[in-house]
Amino acid sequence: MNIEPPYYAVIFSSRRASGDHGYEATAERMVELAKNMPGFLGIETARGADGFGITVSYWRDDSSIAAWRQHGEHVLAQERGRREWYVHYDIRIAKVERAYSGPANPRRTTNLKH
Amino acid sequence: MNIEPPYYAVIFSSRRASGDHGYEATAERMVELAKNMPGFLGIETARGADGFGITVSYWRDDSSIAAWRQHGEHVLAQERGRREWYVHYDIRIAKVERAYSGPANPRRTTNLKH
Repeated sequence: MNIEPPYYAVIFSSRRASGDHGYEATAERMVELAKNMPGFLGIETARGADGFGITVSYWRDDSSIAAWRQHGEHVLAQERGRREWYVHYDIRIAKVERAYSGPANPRRTTNLKH
Repeated sequence: MNIEPPYYAVIFSSRRASGDHGYEATAERMVELAKNMPGFLGIETARGADGFGITVSYWRDDSSIAAWRQHGEHVLAQERGRREWYVHYDIRIAKVERAYSGPANPRRTTNLKH
């Protein structure tokens, strides 16, 4: 992702409940859907063995985030998430003001959409 | 962390090089130091088995972030990070505009400083 700020980040921190219950398949599907939304810039995710994970998605502007939040299939996934998949989550919408990279290849992130 | 936006987030995404080389001990030390910095609000971290991790620290304002970035012991750790610990990293400074939580206990995040 080689994009100059400002742009937006959605920081999704979550603790998973035990068991899959369709989570992995839905998570993959949501990433595919998000990538096709207008204003999508990239996504990165990490989850440790303790079940705590952070996913950050990047968006052109606030209205792109609103449109994704209201996407029908995503709304259904959000409901299942609250009911089945997460013990707890925090969502933070933040405006990225500055970005830098290291130790080489400035502003390149390997697991973001190019 | 039960704090109303606005506040700041530092999103640190990184891919670790193989081997520890003092990383874990330094990472723990940095968290302890950060917690004692003025304006520190919380920190959360997740790293998967593939070596890709995301750490988000939360701060009262931009000047708190600048002070932490310039802390002597932290500067040394940043240098080792570039030289030894990370294949690549991205740092993004973002202003949190909105935050919400689910599925219960609004705005409580278990692994943040209280």
